[in-house]
Formats: sequence, C-alpha cells, structure tokens
Amino acid sequence: TLAAPAIAQENPKITWRLTSSFPKSLDTIYGAAETMAERVKAATDGAFEIQVFAAGEIVPGLQAVDAATDGTVEMCHTASYYYWGKDATFQLGTATPFTLNARMQNAWFIEGGGTDMLNEFYHSQGVHGIPCGNTGAQMGGWFRKEINTVEDLDGLKMRIGGFAGKILAKLGVAPQQIAGGDIYPALEKGTIDATEWVGPYDDQKLGFNKVAKYYYYPGWWEGGAALHSFTNLEKFNGLPKHYQAILTDASYFANASMLARYDVKNPGALKQLVADGAVLRPFNQTVLDACHEKALEVFAETSAENEMFKKIYDSQLAFAKEAYLWQQLSEYTFDTYMMLLQRAGKL
Amino acid sequence: TLAAPAIAQENPKITWRLTSSFPKSLDTIYGAAETMAERVKAATDGAFEIQVFAAGEIVPGLQAVDAATDGTVEMCHTASYYYWGKDATFQLGTATPFTLNARMQNAWFIEGGGTDMLNEFYHSQGVHGIPCGNTGAQMGGWFRKEINTVEDLDGLKMRIGGFAGKILAKLGVAPQQIAGGDIYPALEKGTIDATEWVGPYDDQKLGFNKVAKYYYYPGWWEGGAALHSFTNLEKFNGLPKHYQAILTDASYFANASMLARYDVKNPGALKQLVADGAVLRPFNQTVLDACHEKALEVFAETSAENEMFKKIYDSQLAFAKEAYLWQQLSEYTFDTYMMLLQRAGKL
Repeated sequence: TLAAPAIAQENPKITWRLTSSFPKSLDTIYGAAETMAERVKAATDGAFEIQVFAAGEIVPGLQAVDAATDGTVEMCHTASYYYWGKDATFQLGTATPFTLNARMQNAWFIEGGGTDMLNEFYHSQGVHGIPCGNTGAQMGGWFRKEINTVEDLDGLKMRIGGFAGKILAKLGVAPQQIAGGDIYPALEKGTIDATEWVGPYDDQKLGFNKVAKYYYYPGWWEGGAALHSFTNLEKFNGLPKHYQAILTDASYFANASMLARYDVKNPGALKQLVADGAVLRPFNQTVLDACHEKALEVFAETSAENEMFKKIYDSQLAFAKEAYLWQQLSEYTFDTYMMLLQRAGKL
Repeated sequence: TLAAPAIAQENPKITWRLTSSFPKSLDTIYGAAETMAERVKAATDGAFEIQVFAAGEIVPGLQAVDAATDGTVEMCHTASYYYWGKDATFQLGTATPFTLNARMQNAWFIEGGGTDMLNEFYHSQGVHGIPCGNTGAQMGGWFRKEINTVEDLDGLKMRIGGFAGKILAKLGVAPQQIAGGDIYPALEKGTIDATEWVGPYDDQKLGFNKVAKYYYYPGWWEGGAALHSFTNLEKFNGLPKHYQAILTDASYFANASMLARYDVKNPGALKQLVADGAVLRPFNQTVLDACHEKALEVFAETSAENEMFKKIYDSQLAFAKEAYLWQQLSEYTFDTYMMLLQRAGKL
C-alpha cells in the first residue's frame, strides 16, 4: 500500500463550535467572533470552520469560559472580566479602571508582554486567550438623576459589574449584575437608578435613553475594553502550528475591526440619542478623584491577596504611566486641535 | 500514471521578494515588513516565504512601489505618500494633513470603505495595497530656532516632503526632500534649518537632537501615518485565495504591532532626549491656524484637478468630522483625566 502522503495533513478538516457571550443583535461585539471565524475559514481554504453560537443557544452568556474550559465547546468569545468572581485576575484581560486606553491596551498586549502574561494565567484556567475585539473607551452610562457630588452616588442602585461595581460600592452605590436584555425593564420599573453598557450604538439598541435621561462620560472603568477569543488549552495545543498562527492573526484582525466598527457606528447613534433627548454630562473631577481613590484601594486589597493579579496589574500600571508620558504630546495635541477646528465649524 | 492529487496544491511553495523603503536600523518601521513575512510563513507552515530586503539592497528606498509595479519584486513595504509626485492620490494612503488620527485611519481603512477606495486607485497603478503599520501621530520635528509666529516659518529650509511641504511652502518654507541618512549632516552644516522624521525613538537614532534643539509637536501633517504592503497586482491576483487572506491578515497584524512597538519604545526615547537637552515646544494656535488655512487651499487645488483624489479626500474628511464628534467624549476625557493624574504624580 501507498503511505498516506504527508501533504494530505497540510490543511486538515476541522469543525469547531464557539459560544459567544453576546446576542446576535449586538452586531459589533457579537460580530467580532463571526469576523474571526470567517477569516480563519478563508485562510484555510474552508478547511478550518468555527461555528459561532449566540449567547444562550448552547451555553448561557456568562458561562462561556467555563464551557471552553471543560470542553463543552472548543472556543468562546467573551469579556474576560465576566469571570472575575472565579479569580480577580480575569478582570485585567478586559479593562482595568483608570489604567489603559484602547491603544495602550493593544500596545501592552502585543509589545508590552501583556498577552503572554495573561496567558500564563489563562493557561492555568485551561484556556488560551487571544485579543479579539475592543470597544474603545466606554460611556459612563445612563442615570435618572444628575451626579454632581460624590454624595449623589450614595444609595444609587446601578447595573454595573466587576471591579467598577466594587469601587463604586465603596462610595455607597449598590451594584447590580443584570444581563443585557433585563436592564431596560429594571430601569423602567425603578428597580435600578442607573446602568452602564458600552456606548451610543449598543446603548441605543437597548433603548436606555427612553428611561434614563443623563448620559455620563467617561466610563473610567473601561478605557478600552478588550474581548478575547478563548480556546480550550488542550484543543489549542493540538492544532497544527500553522492553524494556531491563522487563528491568532484572525483574532487580531477582529480585534482591530470591532473597534473600527464601533468608531463608524457610534457617531450617528450619538447624534440620534441627543436628538431624542439624551443629555450629555461629564463626570466632574471631584467625582472622578473620589472614584480613583477607591479604585486604588481595591487594587491594593486585591494585590495583597492575589500574586498573579499583582504582577499583571503592576505591569499595566507601569505601562500606562510611560504611555501617557508620550501620548500627551503629539497624539493628544493633534486631537485637541482637530476638536477645536470641529467646534469652530472648520472641519 | 496517477493523477497529481488536488490536495498537493493546498499550500503551494512560493518564494517572493519584498523591498522595503527603510533601513534595517529603523527596527520599528522596517520591522513591520519582517513581522508580516514571519506571520505569512507561520500561517502557511513555511510554504509561502517573503524575503525582506532593506532600502538600497536591491531597489532604492523611494522606488519601492515602482519596483512592485514593474515586477522587479513581487512586493514592497513603503509609505504611499512617497509617490505623490506620480499622482497626488498616493498621499492619502499614508496621512492627510489635519484629518485622521491613527485610530480613525484604521477605522476608515477597515470599516469606512477606505481600503477598498484606495485599492481602486492602487489597482490602476498596478499594485494591491494592504495597511501594514502605523507610526501614530508624529512629532512636528526639530528646529534650530523657535517658531513663535507664522513669520518665523518664512525662509526656513526644512526637510519635509509631500503635501506638508506644499502647505508649508505657501508660508515661505523651502521644503527639501532628503533621504533619512543625509538629514543629520545637512542640519549640522546648516544646509537646512529644520527637519521632521517620525518621533522620539527613530529621531534619537538619527541624532537630530545634537544639531537642533527645539522639538515641536504635533506633526499636524501626520496624525497617524500608515504604511502599506504593496503587491504587484497580477501576482496578488494569481495567489490562491487563502494565501491572499493570509497575506491580508498578516499585514493587518503588522499594522497593529508596528504602532504597538512605537508606543512601547517612544516614552523611553523621549525621556532620554529631554535629559540630553531637547526642548519640547507645541506649535501655537496661530501657527496651526495658518497651516490649516493653507492645507485647505492645497486640498482644494488638488481636488479641482484630480477626481480620484477628491473622492478619497472627501471621504476621509467626512469620516474625521463624524469620528471627532464621538471621540471627544469618552476617549478624550478618559485620556485627559489620566494625564491629570499623571501630572499630579498619582499614576
């Protein structure tokens, strides 16, 4: 008999399932997994197919990483910080309050040792993570009343998760974990007083402006929230090396294109929200300072009890410190001048 | 005889040559082509190899696109705007003065129709372009004397190319086209009074701070200068579809990683330059306003005589207008607060 030609293994046929933490209606964030899967398929001439399932189709949205860890599915697409309850280090893969903006997050991932450092942790959890989407700096969310002082936060029932909730709890906020689809009725009924989600394009779809008028910024807890594709570690290690490379590049493509999609879709949504009565409000510096002070307490407390968290947080903070030193010059002043032009009607 | 198995064509062996417009010493910008080539090789299990040659090794730096067009090499890695003399539309692929920052440039490329629109033009020039690197907003360059008024620009001999040179010429600057390695002696001898290149990391290597003290920002002509990989159009069309996909994703990976590398390397270089005596100076608003006014003249003149230029420029400008509407909220205010923290020593 003839030996099977080695070449036949070049692009082996593989079909995987990926569970997303998001509904199909959020085409930006759900769409990133689809983009990644399409590009993997294109790069393998159709041989490596990743089937994308929306939240709840095969796995509940907030159990996506668990399903990838235990092998229910080969992959998931989710926000790492949804799993901060399992280990606080998960928070750092998505967004660390008052730390990195989207561009810095990517620089830290790719050239700052971030992805390797995070994978040291993710591998201990049974998954391999690759950046796969970013929202940019998020909005601070929708409030039924104005937040003019730190005291205005006291007693506020707000839908907000992860570390942001922990930080705000120190200022008297009662943070609530509520899935996307349940937020609107909770706000409408007054079960909660405020909510945050992402930004204009997604928020408009969820209709928050109809039940809470004040739209605050910035979302200091998410300067550039990153999504990841997570692959069951054993499955990832079992892939041919060139499939690992293809999966990685496809995820990074989706990482860039998701942010691009938000940047294209947010301006129009923002204009529409304002036309529909949303009132834009910046958090003032007193409020931001109080939140920052409490954030540092949370980071210190968590660092004291979690060595891996401390190692990664320290790396991010050191990176942000350096990065802002540089980005305050040309980046910031170019943008500042462009905004001056725009406000003067000269753009 | 046995028919050749179809599967043997899956990952055909291909070896190509790529000529870069940059010297190996600029590991950021030259490095982007190497990153792209490595990832193509990894994604094809070594079958598709792109050999990267530095500027001058086989083709002079500023003739890279010509060599890809005429088939001397299959590919090049360069800045599209080096070729604005052939057609002004080339300018728009890299950076359009007073228009897009790096993030917007990428959003416009990927989700704003930019890459497709540019390729309509590039295909007419015999090449297929894929974004493959970004410098971020560049510095405004090195000056031997301060620029406090518009009049200070009059008579200034400055190494600056493309549209920026055209714009500054309207304010009395004598723009000079000088290759990277020849700038330092020209500044030292006083043949020129000022020069721009990229930013701290590259500029330090070229030693400009030793012969010109004032380091200005922002480089309003390059809010986020993009590099491209260009492939001879016939060669690109002749690739198997999945190799086209692999080449595209690898270029986009290098697009992100080059910016990341600058973001990692620039802060340290900036600190060192300042320690060595560089004096940081912002262009004031009067100077920026005068440059912007002249930029609009150049855009209008070029648009009047070049339809493709007009189409693409109009698309970029419209995109910038929308994008700044959105980015002035959370992005800008998040960054602003982070810089306040840093200046207060709280970061």
